[in-house]
Amino acid sequence: MSFTLGEITRLVRGTCHGDPSLIIENADIIRDASSGCITLADKAEILNHLQGSEASAVIVPEGLDVPDLASIEVKDVHQAFARVVDLFYPRESEGVSGISTAAQIHPSAQIGDDVTIFPNVYIGPNVTLGNQVTLYPGVSVMEGCSIGANTTIYSNSVLYELTEVGSNCIIHANATIGAFGFGYDSSRGHHVLSAQCGFVRVEDHVDVGAGTTIDRGTYGPTVIGEGSKLDNQVMVAHNCRIGKHNLLCSQVGIAGSCTTGDYVVMAGQVGIGDHLNIGSKTMLGAKAGVMADVPEETIFVGIPATPHREQMQKQAALAKLPEMRKEFKRLQKELNDVLSRMQSAPQNEAA
Amino acid sequence: MSFTLGEITRLVRGTCHGDPSLIIENADIIRDASSGCITLADKAEILNHLQGSEASAVIVPEGLDVPDLASIEVKDVHQAFARVVDLFYPRESEGVSGISTAAQIHPSAQIGDDVTIFPNVYIGPNVTLGNQVTLYPGVSVMEGCSIGANTTIYSNSVLYELTEVGSNCIIHANATIGAFGFGYDSSRGHHVLSAQCGFVRVEDHVDVGAGTTIDRGTYGPTVIGEGSKLDNQVMVAHNCRIGKHNLLCSQVGIAGSCTTGDYVVMAGQVGIGDHLNIGSKTMLGAKAGVMADVPEETIFVGIPATPHREQMQKQAALAKLPEMRKEFKRLQKELNDVLSRMQSAPQNEAA
Amino acid sequence: MSFTLGEITRLVRGTCHGDPSLIIENADIIRDASSGCITLADKAEILNHLQGSEASAVIVPEGLDVPDLASIEVKDVHQAFARVVDLFYPRESEGVSGISTAAQIHPSAQIGDDVTIFPNVYIGPNVTLGNQVTLYPGVSVMEGCSIGANTTIYSNSVLYELTEVGSNCIIHANATIGAFGFGYDSSRGHHVLSAQCGFVRVEDHVDVGAGTTIDRGTYGPTVIGEGSKLDNQVMVAHNCRIGKHNLLCSQVGIAGSCTTGDYVVMAGQVGIGDHLNIGSKTMLGAKAGVMADVPEETIFVGIPATPHREQMQKQAALAKLPEMRKEFKRLQKELNDVLSRMQSAPQNEAA
Repeated sequence: MSFTLGEITRLVRGTCHGDPSLIIENADIIRDASSGCITLADKAEILNHLQGSEASAVIVPEGLDVPDLASIEVKDVHQAFARVVDLFYPRESEGVSGISTAAQIHPSAQIGDDVTIFPNVYIGPNVTLGNQVTLYPGVSVMEGCSIGANTTIYSNSVLYELTEVGSNCIIHANATIGAFGFGYDSSRGHHVLSAQCGFVRVEDHVDVGAGTTIDRGTYGPTVIGEGSKLDNQVMVAHNCRIGKHNLLCSQVGIAGSCTTGDYVVMAGQVGIGDHLNIGSKTMLGAKAGVMADVPEETIFVGIPATPHREQMQKQAALAKLPEMRKEFKRLQKELNDVLSRMQSAPQNEAA
Repeated sequence: MSFTLGEITRLVRGTCHGDPSLIIENADIIRDASSGCITLADKAEILNHLQGSEASAVIVPEGLDVPDLASIEVKDVHQAFARVVDLFYPRESEGVSGISTAAQIHPSAQIGDDVTIFPNVYIGPNVTLGNQVTLYPGVSVMEGCSIGANTTIYSNSVLYELTEVGSNCIIHANATIGAFGFGYDSSRGHHVLSAQCGFVRVEDHVDVGAGTTIDRGTYGPTVIGEGSKLDNQVMVAHNCRIGKHNLLCSQVGIAGSCTTGDYVVMAGQVGIGDHLNIGSKTMLGAKAGVMADVPEETIFVGIPATPHREQMQKQAALAKLPEMRKEFKRLQKELNDVLSRMQSAPQNEAA
Repeated sequence: MSFTLGEITRLVRGTCHGDPSLIIENADIIRDASSGCITLADKAEILNHLQGSEASAVIVPEGLDVPDLASIEVKDVHQAFARVVDLFYPRESEGVSGISTAAQIHPSAQIGDDVTIFPNVYIGPNVTLGNQVTLYPGVSVMEGCSIGANTTIYSNSVLYELTEVGSNCIIHANATIGAFGFGYDSSRGHHVLSAQCGFVRVEDHVDVGAGTTIDRGTYGPTVIGEGSKLDNQVMVAHNCRIGKHNLLCSQVGIAGSCTTGDYVVMAGQVGIGDHLNIGSKTMLGAKAGVMADVPEETIFVGIPATPHREQMQKQAALAKLPEMRKEFKRLQKELNDVLSRMQSAPQNEAA
């Protein structure tokens, strides 16, 4: 399949620089683009990477000038390029619509309009599904769950009983929402499981990554606030209240009963101790180990996590420590020499 | 639905302080309790939190005096409050009992009494299920596994062939037990998988968290000892022998052939190198990186993990290192001044 | 069941030292071997462990002399012992062959010869399966995926649309391949998901561990190179290009758009920041936090990761820091004494 540069320009509603009859046969990122490909550069710095590339054309943001290559200026480079990729690799829907007869749906479940349910889905009693919900194969939705409109849940994810998922959410494969909190009374020599009366509430516009786990509250809800996005293999423990528009990167682990403000960002593999509060707009660096509350609008890094600037100083000092240690030993020796010379010398008072 | 304080007192077999005809309309934790709610305070320190709360009554442990609020004294606060929560949010069973016709069960499987098997469960040849076992949708139990009485396995968990699970266990959703150990012979330029002849043995009263993985032994078993509890996303590698009554928090990773004693506690994101022994009653702090054996009844933290006290001293010294570095440079300069003054001065022996 | 030492010797094509009529009743590793057992020792150092053992015989590599115990010398100890274990614990195939009628297979799927498909598998439109592919229960293969010959996918793993898996791969249970990359445009106060036009390509002879997640590329592929092995709960983010014959241990997390060379080894819980390159034959120590490119054939450890030697020096210096701090304070005092004595003393120039 091929298209002309002019056709692509019209598709993305851009401005064409170069021969509109140029034939474009594929779309790929700069790293992989070969001759005949259109590629993208979303900022000026990226243009350098084009020099070693065989790409035949490039999509750029408005105002960016590309001297030696056919280009299309657009408002939103990524949106435009996604359309072009879709031109060469059209994605059809899974060829399934409606409700598979190979799904197991309890008769008491309430199902909205235009819902897609794949084979091998299980839906328990008193479940409510909003309109346009899609459940991929092997999803398990236990008793009393509710799922809002336009939410998609990918294969083999599990919602324990009474889980509430809002509208416009995406829950990726093999996620587990609503399993038991890890709370035990160990006073009698063995570990007795605490109450598991709570549930999980996932608000609107939340994404949950593949393999991520969110445990139910002890008595009330564990909450993932509106618009927050959780990457793969994130762990949110019982009773946590994650604020709105948080970004939790892969393998973050948050212990029980923590709260976060809004627009908190946690980089990969961050760990947070239990019962802590993370202020709004705070950023936690990769692998940070948080052992105390973190105030708003700060950057904390390190184990234990401290303000970024402090950590940089520590690390710089630590890097020079082996050398400092050597200098220190020389200094000790020199001082000892001074001391012994002062002692061996006739004392001034005797002079 | 509503109940009187007196009714609730009788339910939890407590002692009522306040008007027994007081109407209680809901149960919630202090953070969320509104007017009409009963809440709980499991120790004296928590009573302060009640001051900003609108809660109408509180359940407290025997002997705890609550001056300005209706209260019920009980022996076990959490047990009592769980009952009250259940009063307002009764949980019915999933409405399923017996063995679903939509489960796939090999005819050679031996199934105990009062077993519940949900749709889309797979049970392979020669599997044995004890009495009162519950298998939720999508559970996969391969050939030759055995599962003891009263054990519950949640949706989409997988037991590879020959896995042994004891009685009274809980295995949460998307757990994987018995996958191949990560052992390769790399001597020929590519990685050749080692023998995978072993299996996993999970003893009685063990809990396994959602998304947790336990690999099979090379030739014999990987063992999770009686009463041990594993949180979500824990990794136990091949040939490990986890002792009894361990608590392994979320995202702990234990490399191959480790052993642990009894009552070991590992906080979140701990990592343990291969072939190491962790002594009984030892506690490993969050994110600890263990690179050598750890003796009994100790607390180890840090990367590499060392005794807690040692680590605290290191951290304290490190925190002061940037300042010490500045002082050190001043000291160097002062000593140089001393040295140059001593050299430029007429020597005493010449006096 | 029992066999003679002679029978076992013939099975493993080894050389027998000891009475060939000796009865062997079981096979187990040294730690667990009781009387009547045959065990293995794959190198000389291991022979010490035999002293406390009740094992009746041992399999050893050619040239290794065992003074006081019956032994069989063989070329490949592990291969031989695996055969012996199989003798005592024969593994039958799952008793399933062919394509289960309880699998859901789209009519447009192309299925090779001798394929085994268990119940509750879902195969979407236009999927291609090579010869001898095995799909265990609950596997979900979405539209347009291709799976090469001799590849096995264990229960409840999920392949999103257009995933390409090569031949001779093993994908363990609950793995997720092809979920959305964690990329958002956050410029408008909420997080807008980036393009998800790409896919995942897993080359030949790759193993993927249980619960591991590999996200699709933004526009093109995320690649796992030929012969690479990923342990359980590994995370490979969007656009990564993992080279050939890498070993990624459990709970490793690699952020978006990283590349690795060939024969890279990452120990457990390593984390790598986005857009970084890891050179061929490089080794990253457990829990390393990589924040910059790493050159070829190096060993990096620590957070932030630095060359191994450098890290050892830092750690050694850090371990002595509390003591050095005390010495430093004493030095300060001594120097102050010197300074005050020099000041209080009659100046030499006055002598």
